Amino acid sequence: MSDPHKYAAEHGERFLSQLQDLLRIPSVSADKTNHTADVEQAARWLAEDMERIGLENIEVIQEEGHHPLLYAEWMNAGEDAPTVLIYGHYDVQPAEVRDGWDTPPFEPVIKGDKLYARGASDDKGQMFAQLKAAEALLATDSCPVNLKFLIEGEEEISSAGLLSYVPQNVGKLAADVCVISDTAILGREEPSIVYALRGLTYFEVEVHGPASDLHSGSWGGVVHNPVQAIAEIIAGLHNADGSVNVSGFYDDVLPLEADEREKLKAVEMTEERFKASTGAPQPWGEPAYSLTERIGARPTLEVHGIEGGFYGEGAKTVLPSRALAKLSCRLVANQDPAKIYDLVKQRIYELAPDTVTVDVRHIGANGFPALVDINDPALQAAVTAYERGWGSSPKYVRGGGSIPIVAEFQNNLNIPVILLGFGLETDGIHGPNEHFHVDMFHKGIDTAIHFLEAVAKQ
Amino acid sequence: MSDPHKYAAEHGERFLSQLQDLLRIPSVSADKTNHTADVEQAARWLAEDMERIGLENIEVIQEEGHHPLLYAEWMNAGEDAPTVLIYGHYDVQPAEVRDGWDTPPFEPVIKGDKLYARGASDDKGQMFAQLKAAEALLATDSCPVNLKFLIEGEEEISSAGLLSYVPQNVGKLAADVCVISDTAILGREEPSIVYALRGLTYFEVEVHGPASDLHSGSWGGVVHNPVQAIAEIIAGLHNADGSVNVSGFYDDVLPLEADEREKLKAVEMTEERFKASTGAPQPWGEPAYSLTERIGARPTLEVHGIEGGFYGEGAKTVLPSRALAKLSCRLVANQDPAKIYDLVKQRIYELAPDTVTVDVRHIGANGFPALVDINDPALQAAVTAYERGWGSSPKYVRGGGSIPIVAEFQNNLNIPVILLGFGLETDGIHGPNEHFHVDMFHKGIDTAIHFLEAVAKQ
Repeated sequence: MSDPHKYAAEHGERFLSQLQDLLRIPSVSADKTNHTADVEQAARWLAEDMERIGLENIEVIQEEGHHPLLYAEWMNAGEDAPTVLIYGHYDVQPAEVRDGWDTPPFEPVIKGDKLYARGASDDKGQMFAQLKAAEALLATDSCPVNLKFLIEGEEEISSAGLLSYVPQNVGKLAADVCVISDTAILGREEPSIVYALRGLTYFEVEVHGPASDLHSGSWGGVVHNPVQAIAEIIAGLHNADGSVNVSGFYDDVLPLEADEREKLKAVEMTEERFKASTGAPQPWGEPAYSLTERIGARPTLEVHGIEGGFYGEGAKTVLPSRALAKLSCRLVANQDPAKIYDLVKQRIYELAPDTVTVDVRHIGANGFPALVDINDPALQAAVTAYERGWGSSPKYVRGGGSIPIVAEFQNNLNIPVILLGFGLETDGIHGPNEHFHVDMFHKGIDTAIHFLEAVAKQ
Repeated sequence: MSDPHKYAAEHGERFLSQLQDLLRIPSVSADKTNHTADVEQAARWLAEDMERIGLENIEVIQEEGHHPLLYAEWMNAGEDAPTVLIYGHYDVQPAEVRDGWDTPPFEPVIKGDKLYARGASDDKGQMFAQLKAAEALLATDSCPVNLKFLIEGEEEISSAGLLSYVPQNVGKLAADVCVISDTAILGREEPSIVYALRGLTYFEVEVHGPASDLHSGSWGGVVHNPVQAIAEIIAGLHNADGSVNVSGFYDDVLPLEADEREKLKAVEMTEERFKASTGAPQPWGEPAYSLTERIGARPTLEVHGIEGGFYGEGAKTVLPSRALAKLSCRLVANQDPAKIYDLVKQRIYELAPDTVTVDVRHIGANGFPALVDINDPALQAAVTAYERGWGSSPKYVRGGGSIPIVAEFQNNLNIPVILLGFGLETDGIHGPNEHFHVDMFHKGIDTAIHFLEAVAKQ
């Protein structure tokens, strides 16, 4: 048994070269017409590398209408050793030079300290760091944990195959902890752990008044204007202090404990940064919570858009027959999206006057919120890993957005899911000139090894 | 001196034939490319008929960029006789067979008891009834009043030429009363007088929040959503009882007197008629006023449309950067549109929180409300005229819409403006198969004569 970190350092050049080979395969999952074969090629390429490094029971799971899902395992650490499920994805967002790329997106190139290519950061580079960590551990005969890899090819098109596979294979996927490297840290020298994500329930509200548009002169004053009615409903969904005015909305929200609030202060957003980042004149929202807490630790109700009547150039004196608004709620642990949707729907019908008719319709799939206790041993293993990989302690971050697969793993497998990200917000994922810092790739491999080592010691 | 009514009856066939000649001229004012010559031909045709029947000082007023305005007078009734200003328009709305006409719109045809052609009711037929009434009075040497005709060719494109001409010619247009035949009565056997019209002030409200659209996961909870903010502003403009929540809004509204409310009961709208006409589930508005009163005697604030963010198919979790709404107030006597606009603007800025920026912009020209006292002798002359022309007393109606020229004549010339309409709501004006009932044309001529006779006797 030799040092896996030394192995990773000695083989770093080849790892980087291998990553570039993987990045050359344009595995664009959204474009089934032109890239289905490329997606399959990327899956095979990975399966071959998995076999080469010593993973076992490798499966390229190919379901009708879906891109391949890759499974591989190494279960030789012994029954007493913990099992770690490692998730990642090998599919990428579409990319064309005309979108503004300085170099072709599928011809990886290193300029300065960055590797440019579609997927460099999201998620081929980060996922491959996990695979190379496994190689380093296996090659040096020092892997202290059992490994299960689940790498999908549909993350950029909402993971439909994975979302049906996970609940049907809870026994096969059983593990003590899940780790995902597919997020960003606060800065190159500022590691951070996202330990919470918000859930989502999305819906639309349509208000109908008169059967067709009317003349506001002939009917204004006796017909309840649907735009006014929908405005009254929307206004009725918040209290003056920015909290959501829906009975029971906050009932299941886990309160923020003092130690967590203390930790969150390290990443608190100043009013200056708020203004610089948003361009909005003033912050808004629940006064009892800091800006950072409002984003990550509090549920919200948002209006995404509204439309009704005449809004073109000039004047038209129409009394519109209908108005539509799209809304969603971002949820935090332990809110249930279906329950929250029902409460909000009930409140909207309660606000709806009998002078109009109101429909509320659910849209898309619900997403559960996710939260790992900051004192969970698995989370502390990640803290240790970042401390060793980066030389400084990671900050604790609650993410405001939603990554549905996180709650999916957490709820189906009943294990903590650790987001061990090596990217940066500035990596340009989903946009032109996506890149990954070369040193983040190498530090990522090291940190991934440290994580598995730390998990084993608990 | 012989009987003008007998003359009108004897010459009725010719009058109807003449009207059809006028209707054959496609005087579409909106289509300056194809119909400018037709509009001019219609003006000349009318000028020639005016000359033939004995009107004097005929002018075809041709201002650069405008269609001709026709002026003619007959001032030989003597200094003690009242002077009546008669307004009408000879231009028409566009019309094409493909819009759904059963017969070509500029080939007038009588089917059953109706004359079909574009302009038959709006306004060639009604305006021509006034001209033929003058002919009958002049031909029988029995005209008891001085006459001034002002007939425009831009009514369907907002009367720009007329609106600048009237204030510059108040001496020339001086009269004791103005009469306009360009409206509808309640039914073929149910004459009515519109003695009030609402004014209008139109504006838009734009709310800006963040500098660009944001991700609702990243920023929801700390950024005041502009769609929510505009909804809160719109909701704040009405009280729960449907009244407008703007300080001073009702200050100048003339109260409805008991006798007027009694008269309005004759045309009260039932809830059944409300539902059948609008398709809205329930009436809405100020409970202290009947439906008819809310439409005609009360000012309103209406939202014509709203737009912001994402409202397409499916879901998009955007936090929009802006939202826009178009609004107007319909006004009643004696409200001043500029003053009301200022009050509403002030209220909107008062409702605007400092978490967003709000702009209020005025659009188009203000329109003043118009009201003729129901006891005004000129209005009573119209009552008499309908009683004689139709054999039944007219009902009193307050119109909810706006006809800016009415207030323009009233305010510039300081005279009552009488709407002596001969059309029906079902005439299809502005739509396909516009028509005028042949008997309404003949009754109209008789009623117009009765009106001038009744004015003379006061």
